Amino acid sequence: MSGNAFGSIFRVTTWGESHGPAVGAVIDGCPAGLALSEKDVQRELDRRRTGQSKVSTARKEKDRAVILSGVFKGKTTGVPISILVENQDVDSSAYEKIKDLFRPGHADFTYHAKYGFRDYRGGGRSSGRETVGRVAAGAVAKKLLALHGMEVFGYSIQIHDVRMEKFDRREIERNDVRCPDKRAAKLMAQRIMEFKAKGDSVGGVIEIRATGVPAGLGEPVFDKLDADLAKAIMGLGSVKGVEIGAGFGAAGMLGSENNDPFISSGGVPALESNNSGGILGGISTGAEIVIRAAVKPTPSISLAQRTVDVQGREREIRVGGRHDPCICPRIIPVAESMAAITIADHFLRHRAGR
Amino acid sequence: MSGNAFGSIFRVTTWGESHGPAVGAVIDGCPAGLALSEKDVQRELDRRRTGQSKVSTARKEKDRAVILSGVFKGKTTGVPISILVENQDVDSSAYEKIKDLFRPGHADFTYHAKYGFRDYRGGGRSSGRETVGRVAAGAVAKKLLALHGMEVFGYSIQIHDVRMEKFDRREIERNDVRCPDKRAAKLMAQRIMEFKAKGDSVGGVIEIRATGVPAGLGEPVFDKLDADLAKAIMGLGSVKGVEIGAGFGAAGMLGSENNDPFISSGGVPALESNNSGGILGGISTGAEIVIRAAVKPTPSISLAQRTVDVQGREREIRVGGRHDPCICPRIIPVAESMAAITIADHFLRHRAGR
Amino acid sequence: MSGNAFGSIFRVTTWGESHGPAVGAVIDGCPAGLALSEKDVQRELDRRRTGQSKVSTARKEKDRAVILSGVFKGKTTGVPISILVENQDVDSSAYEKIKDLFRPGHADFTYHAKYGFRDYRGGGRSSGRETVGRVAAGAVAKKLLALHGMEVFGYSIQIHDVRMEKFDRREIERNDVRCPDKRAAKLMAQRIMEFKAKGDSVGGVIEIRATGVPAGLGEPVFDKLDADLAKAIMGLGSVKGVEIGAGFGAAGMLGSENNDPFISSGGVPALESNNSGGILGGISTGAEIVIRAAVKPTPSISLAQRTVDVQGREREIRVGGRHDPCICPRIIPVAESMAAITIADHFLRHRAGR
Amino acid sequence: MSGNAFGSIFRVTTWGESHGPAVGAVIDGCPAGLALSEKDVQRELDRRRTGQSKVSTARKEKDRAVILSGVFKGKTTGVPISILVENQDVDSSAYEKIKDLFRPGHADFTYHAKYGFRDYRGGGRSSGRETVGRVAAGAVAKKLLALHGMEVFGYSIQIHDVRMEKFDRREIERNDVRCPDKRAAKLMAQRIMEFKAKGDSVGGVIEIRATGVPAGLGEPVFDKLDADLAKAIMGLGSVKGVEIGAGFGAAGMLGSENNDPFISSGGVPALESNNSGGILGGISTGAEIVIRAAVKPTPSISLAQRTVDVQGREREIRVGGRHDPCICPRIIPVAESMAAITIADHFLRHRAGR
Repeated sequence: MSGNAFGSIFRVTTWGESHGPAVGAVIDGCPAGLALSEKDVQRELDRRRTGQSKVSTARKEKDRAVILSGVFKGKTTGVPISILVENQDVDSSAYEKIKDLFRPGHADFTYHAKYGFRDYRGGGRSSGRETVGRVAAGAVAKKLLALHGMEVFGYSIQIHDVRMEKFDRREIERNDVRCPDKRAAKLMAQRIMEFKAKGDSVGGVIEIRATGVPAGLGEPVFDKLDADLAKAIMGLGSVKGVEIGAGFGAAGMLGSENNDPFISSGGVPALESNNSGGILGGISTGAEIVIRAAVKPTPSISLAQRTVDVQGREREIRVGGRHDPCICPRIIPVAESMAAITIADHFLRHRAGR
Repeated sequence: MSGNAFGSIFRVTTWGESHGPAVGAVIDGCPAGLALSEKDVQRELDRRRTGQSKVSTARKEKDRAVILSGVFKGKTTGVPISILVENQDVDSSAYEKIKDLFRPGHADFTYHAKYGFRDYRGGGRSSGRETVGRVAAGAVAKKLLALHGMEVFGYSIQIHDVRMEKFDRREIERNDVRCPDKRAAKLMAQRIMEFKAKGDSVGGVIEIRATGVPAGLGEPVFDKLDADLAKAIMGLGSVKGVEIGAGFGAAGMLGSENNDPFISSGGVPALESNNSGGILGGISTGAEIVIRAAVKPTPSISLAQRTVDVQGREREIRVGGRHDPCICPRIIPVAESMAAITIADHFLRHRAGR
Repeated sequence: MSGNAFGSIFRVTTWGESHGPAVGAVIDGCPAGLALSEKDVQRELDRRRTGQSKVSTARKEKDRAVILSGVFKGKTTGVPISILVENQDVDSSAYEKIKDLFRPGHADFTYHAKYGFRDYRGGGRSSGRETVGRVAAGAVAKKLLALHGMEVFGYSIQIHDVRMEKFDRREIERNDVRCPDKRAAKLMAQRIMEFKAKGDSVGGVIEIRATGVPAGLGEPVFDKLDADLAKAIMGLGSVKGVEIGAGFGAAGMLGSENNDPFISSGGVPALESNNSGGILGGISTGAEIVIRAAVKPTPSISLAQRTVDVQGREREIRVGGRHDPCICPRIIPVAESMAAITIADHFLRHRAGR
Repeated sequence: MSGNAFGSIFRVTTWGESHGPAVGAVIDGCPAGLALSEKDVQRELDRRRTGQSKVSTARKEKDRAVILSGVFKGKTTGVPISILVENQDVDSSAYEKIKDLFRPGHADFTYHAKYGFRDYRGGGRSSGRETVGRVAAGAVAKKLLALHGMEVFGYSIQIHDVRMEKFDRREIERNDVRCPDKRAAKLMAQRIMEFKAKGDSVGGVIEIRATGVPAGLGEPVFDKLDADLAKAIMGLGSVKGVEIGAGFGAAGMLGSENNDPFISSGGVPALESNNSGGILGGISTGAEIVIRAAVKPTPSISLAQRTVDVQGREREIRVGGRHDPCICPRIIPVAESMAAITIADHFLRHRAGR
């Protein structure tokens, strides 16, 4: 009801604020008997962590994952898995100065409108720091999916005006922008540094793929698999658009072009093309699931911006602190996590109905 | 859990299949004391109805709404509102012939993969006919929103390659494609008829706007207002993409361009521009909410298509029956309904937390 | 959220008021492929129906069940099952006279306090008539349970001061009070008629048993099987107490008396006694589940009672209309239904977690 | 779905096992602006703590509450409140010896049947230790209720064969068994020590009261206030029965005796008696809410008991470790917490529907 939990069977609740003592997640509904260790979680947290490259913020998050419950002798027991990550290197001083100003593009004003009272330090609950809990839960979801032959991964396909031109999966984790095209990656990083130098920021487009997903996942009508994936991904702070398969491109296509013909793949129905992005009528087809998300430029910029304060007076603001000039590289593990959680949940929901 | 209900407080459950005796909706959580009559529901059903123009299917749905509970002396009583619409003019003969074939672009294959056993007549539960229940519920949501000064409306902005160029709201309901640009509307209708004549179909883009929405609606983290709207709209059978405000356009913008400056509007914070589409950090800003959706071309086309049958043998299919050559005009009241239900739910959720 | 739905996977929503056009239920989450017909539902509705004996109300409810969705060729398809029962023989005249008075023991006052505005005819939504939907849904749950070797049945063990002394299951449906003890049944019926003649009413205790329930159903901590059964049964309008196994009797026992020893039943763990009533730690043991419920005397009595009106003035009331002088016999199929729905839901929940 | 969360708006998730590193709770949906400190939580935890008297276990739990999120400058911010309590003085050695045996009256067997794999140390998740999280959450609920003039408190009314005879509220927290009758309290403590000396244990009955609850709380049909209270209380490990108001006593009453007459209390409707226990038709009447629960004798006894092991072989067991010989005194703060959480949730639900 209050929006801090996600999923029906595989259900994740996150808690914690940017500048509080810790952030964390409780994962309920994970089946018993899954091999799980803190290392599994740490690996994903490390991918999300800041301070990894020159294109991300200087805030150093060590982000040590501690599993407090739900695992016994290296395996899940079927009860809630509680994971905690302490907040370290917290510096709230920059926020004290602007605590009465609404940062443009941020949730300061809307949280103020909603709650009246808010933790203004680093955005509090609205901070990207909250996604630590999502990534921890996503690590558990990924383990569950892997056990059943599924995998989720993501990458940048566009940063500002630079687009990916070729796809080499091995390249993704080798460069700072997580782009599968080595040459484009270099240009993308350049573009980020160029605008960062001007005190500005850039946006981009990321793509998430899920492989090995069996046909039949997704619930009809409202909880379609694509509907829940759209919610999962649009629920990331800087995402302004989500598309599946051909997406907005389908708007300009004819039915005869857009329909994916069914073919027989050794007697088993398969799809010749994948405009549907792995989902038809809200249910997985067995083909690869393909999702794209539009990521807005980081709202925190050091250029002067016009705003108002809590008394409604017009003011000027320059957002200091330490921020990523482009959110794409670090949002990828988060988006993967949300996709993995969504698919894991539908996998269990599907089994429940059999 | 099974995906046939939507919303947390204002909660809608729909039921019914295309060729069964009836379809309907149960609306739970509507506050007591709201003026509501069958006419309110009928008006919206009539907007969704087929047989209204040459660009829609010839299936004639009279769609008479009957309110079976929850209203007493013209007002809601706070208990569930049950609305039923009988299915008339049902002709299943066309489906008997293709009951063992999977129609490309349809949910036949995925429902088969999910349930093993399915009502193949007219797509059964996966049929657009199910949206009658959504529109009935949407009519109730719209009444609730109107009482609090909110309104939701939608229109086509693109059909195939034709784009809207100017906006005249009065024009929307005057033409067959629900486009606010009279001249573009004529071209859009032409394009539809042109491809219909070839046995093909076209897609498009629709836009939904919500006015009068107060600042503060939406729940942080997972149930952001934009996340729930994305789910609501992506959950419509032929939608393949959803964007809010600048949407995918934000990917190419700079932070300094995309951030909406706050200004003082008579001492009250307001936004000078609306790239955020009325939502920041998942919570409404008080500005107009702007959503766009990519609608794929109707999958049912009379051109020959390659497919397989339930035994996995390759076959050819021509989909007969009566279908809209473009889904945009008729999906608009459905998308409006889903947006209205989502906003009504968040309006009540917000009040619950105060 | 509004309390008109029950269950997590096997989820039942009921709708309808006593004197509206119809009542009904939507059953979501029933697996595909279950054989189901209107006869299955009718059989249970007939057991709940009034006018069957001299100990029940004279209101004649024909209660014809119509299945509107979810069943195709005699089998469930996995989508929502909508069942409707028209209200007939509705006579609201008696209620017009007392519409401004709060009937003692009824929900008139509390609904007024909650909603401000209420359908006063026959208690509206708070009427026992609402349980038609529960029994219809219970019939579906019973079919699902039967398929997996489970059965739920109930009977009266006490009416006013008369207690059952022996148990003969075949006797239950042969007498007007559904008591498995022929001799006690006769005395119970006498006691009911005796107080009915005085314009008064009596209470009693019913027992519900579930056989064939496998070990392992129930979720730890909050959604224990006994917790959900307690909610299911306490949620019936006239139930004031629920106990499992030894129940309140356990309060006076020693640990050494109350603990059920485990024995080996052909190498399989079994319980020698059943003080735990088939549930330990909230999870089924494999033994018979035994629930008892205290049923208060019918609040509608024709004796003069003191009350107040909506203006808060003290008044006298005599409740006319047609009422059961004892609720026990007719609440049994309703309580069975709620138990069956609860167990069916936990059966599916358990499978979902494997 | 997995049963580790409770409530609709005021929603509590608990996590943690008896012998893991910590236990805790996440409280979601608490309104912003409520004054809350660790002291508020500590006070309630101290009431639940062991080692306080000779009638409770020797396990010493320091139980230091730490609030990790949701509170800023001494007030709640409307986001999740995460509370953690470390497990100290953990000694698993006694459990290693009996890890293959099913303790009679415990959840060992049913957890084994459900999950296959379980944390056998101290009962793991099924341990009473889990209720630390409930009490922490209950402390928050109590603060919210207090702000709106409501209070929840509880006491023992029966231990084994000794019953309370008079009521003096000040006495409750002064004696080891939390009985409001000083003389009975002494006898109750004697009875506990007497059977403890024999290696046995005793049961009892507790009563929980809620004062100041306004009329109108509770949702019709399934989520009646009494239904949710029954679930809340029956969901405590050793509770085998729950009753409201006259409870099982109502079974033997006449309608004319059991109905509570309405009277005018200064023009406002009030109830002359309280057989309904503060709830009519599932909705609060404004009168005091009265709940009683049957508490079974502690299943852990040092007397020899017959049982089986995981291989199904018959064995003898003596349960060592440190256990309360009677659960009543320490279950009271837990039952109060569950009642407080339930009422807080319905208070917010009621407001949401206005």
